[in-house]
Amino acid sequence: MTSRTAAYRQVDKPDSEVVRFGVDDPLRLDCGVDLAPLTVAYQTYGTLNAERSNAILACHALTGDQHVANRHPVTGKPGWWDLMVGPGKPIDTNRFFVICANVLGSCMGTTGPSSIDPATGQAYGLNFPVVTIRDMVRAQAKLIDHLGIETLFCVAGGSMGGMQVLQWAASYPDRVFSAIPIATAARHSSQNIAFHEVGRQAVMADPDWRGGRYLIEGTRPSKGLAVARMAAHITYLSEEALHRKFGRNLQDRETVTFGFDADFQIESYLRHQGMTFVDRFDANSYLYLTRAMDYFDLAADYGGTLANAFRDSRTRFCVVSFTSDWLFPTEGNRQVVHALNAAGARVSFVEIETDRGHDAFLLDEPEMFAAIRGFLESAARARGLAAPVAVP
Amino acid sequence: MTSRTAAYRQVDKPDSEVVRFGVDDPLRLDCGVDLAPLTVAYQTYGTLNAERSNAILACHALTGDQHVANRHPVTGKPGWWDLMVGPGKPIDTNRFFVICANVLGSCMGTTGPSSIDPATGQAYGLNFPVVTIRDMVRAQAKLIDHLGIETLFCVAGGSMGGMQVLQWAASYPDRVFSAIPIATAARHSSQNIAFHEVGRQAVMADPDWRGGRYLIEGTRPSKGLAVARMAAHITYLSEEALHRKFGRNLQDRETVTFGFDADFQIESYLRHQGMTFVDRFDANSYLYLTRAMDYFDLAADYGGTLANAFRDSRTRFCVVSFTSDWLFPTEGNRQVVHALNAAGARVSFVEIETDRGHDAFLLDEPEMFAAIRGFLESAARARGLAAPVAVP
Repeated sequence: MTSRTAAYRQVDKPDSEVVRFGVDDPLRLDCGVDLAPLTVAYQTYGTLNAERSNAILACHALTGDQHVANRHPVTGKPGWWDLMVGPGKPIDTNRFFVICANVLGSCMGTTGPSSIDPATGQAYGLNFPVVTIRDMVRAQAKLIDHLGIETLFCVAGGSMGGMQVLQWAASYPDRVFSAIPIATAARHSSQNIAFHEVGRQAVMADPDWRGGRYLIEGTRPSKGLAVARMAAHITYLSEEALHRKFGRNLQDRETVTFGFDADFQIESYLRHQGMTFVDRFDANSYLYLTRAMDYFDLAADYGGTLANAFRDSRTRFCVVSFTSDWLFPTEGNRQVVHALNAAGARVSFVEIETDRGHDAFLLDEPEMFAAIRGFLESAARARGLAAPVAVP
Repeated sequence: MTSRTAAYRQVDKPDSEVVRFGVDDPLRLDCGVDLAPLTVAYQTYGTLNAERSNAILACHALTGDQHVANRHPVTGKPGWWDLMVGPGKPIDTNRFFVICANVLGSCMGTTGPSSIDPATGQAYGLNFPVVTIRDMVRAQAKLIDHLGIETLFCVAGGSMGGMQVLQWAASYPDRVFSAIPIATAARHSSQNIAFHEVGRQAVMADPDWRGGRYLIEGTRPSKGLAVARMAAHITYLSEEALHRKFGRNLQDRETVTFGFDADFQIESYLRHQGMTFVDRFDANSYLYLTRAMDYFDLAADYGGTLANAFRDSRTRFCVVSFTSDWLFPTEGNRQVVHALNAAGARVSFVEIETDRGHDAFLLDEPEMFAAIRGFLESAARARGLAAPVAVP
């Protein structure tokens, strides 16, 4: 099956699997719109067992995509969770069948604002409906249905991926045997909305954004998107990590230049982050996905009491946070744990000591790997899954 | 005396006092340039005593100016330290003569990038030399000389103002009887340089910035400067204060709009901060002053040992920090205290418990007021200053 919607057209399209839902099978969104057609692009790793009981859905973060553990088709870099997912790794593809779908509203093959609006034959731009985390999960559920999987063995992800994990557990409790929300929160904080708003304003301030019609008008709001990325990137790291990694080190020079070049390493690092990001990401998708995160407030959908989102849940949870994460601090993760406790759910909680900030969930954190490996092993036994296939 | 340099021309010029240093009296800058002419705009409050021993220099922060305790001529709002400075206030103008000068590189009357470059007859723009905190202090010292004041009773200020306080104490130890650096650091951190770089890139990404020549070309990089201000503003507040003040409250609506309007109060607040800022501040000045802060590393000028900056100092110090300030955390202020201790200087240190973040130094913080009032009272006695003139 291949997509007939031309999605984000400014990067070579990755050769992902895609599933397309036609006009007869629309996705009803929280905003009230019936979205159709809908393409979901995804990758899989490992083998689905005969019982279809060993599937793990990995949920990606804001600027992530379905390329969890393969070389990224645009950047050429390893997948975003290459350290976590693979043969013999904590999420062991010798044992589990791992699925990751590009989220609704993104730009790596799944329908989003850079897709063609069937009503006009041109890119949606701002005519794309505003989507929510729940909408993303609904689209994933359609994919899981399509794959013939009744119950996911696990749903796992960090940051915006963790929001999806929580939403999965709330929306489809019987379809989620275990769940690993990492470095996330049940609602987006005021400060985090503020940072997102800065990023959106940076994009929209770029005259090449053209009111969201840049794909039609043949421009690219690269400068604005780069600024947005730079601001966001600071929030992904800890002050300690920046200090350790860069401090006040100068970039290829002995003394400051008394100018506005990148005198400091941190400046050239950030500029590089901004510049490379715009090569792989669609500016409107950035607006839509940040908005989805801002709107996320799981308790609000359950009468204001987060525990109600998990009442009678039989899902096993492993909540993970990082001590130096100031974007999704331990406190917000702990609120999820408290709600799960209040709901009588099975939950373990691991706070990892690290100075790497929010990005730690993507990095080599042995304590996180050990915790997740152990949790999955225990859940797999409870699920009656066979031991890992020996690596030849 | 009035300025003959037309300074920032896009706001009505405030009626400040100004002193002008001609081409025969240049200011030698750290970058090696001799800057002339130089205008310094300043305000004073209270009366200089006959001994000229009761002068307090207040040093303003990045986007502050000389309007400490009078209605601001552009915004119509009270001065930035109106709660601190005035008759009967902690910095009591019945007793002290308070001076505040617009810093070098700024845009409220003191020479900066929006001033006329005598070499071209047009606004300097990026031809203005990059200045440092030490250069700002040198310009202030020229003003203090001009006012016939040998020794300042006190130098006080927060944030970038606190950097100037530390530089004054290091550069002119015999001219500073007491010093109150608040919410500051002896060097700018990697994370803070990063935030500044985002702001500068936001300004420079605005095509109306025109390579810094916008005053000449008749444009204004308002959108870029507003984005810079929005990003910076988040760093001035604490997560707790944002949560308390705004939380996830919606702006004049019952439910979210599924769009990119300012659904949340925090969004409209930030947009307002951005929009009002551009009416009173020059974009190039923003670049120059953030750069000056980035370059600040007092220890580096003293063989890498901060204590050497204060050896044999007889200045009395009162260092103030705030528990929820994550831009200039207590730790950085404590490093100053440790260096002062190591240098054998007299220092008291007050960490104020507050959830208001970095901006607390501008706000109604009774504990801060009490500490500064007490410190000044004790220093005034040591200096042999008369008790406050009774308010009539």
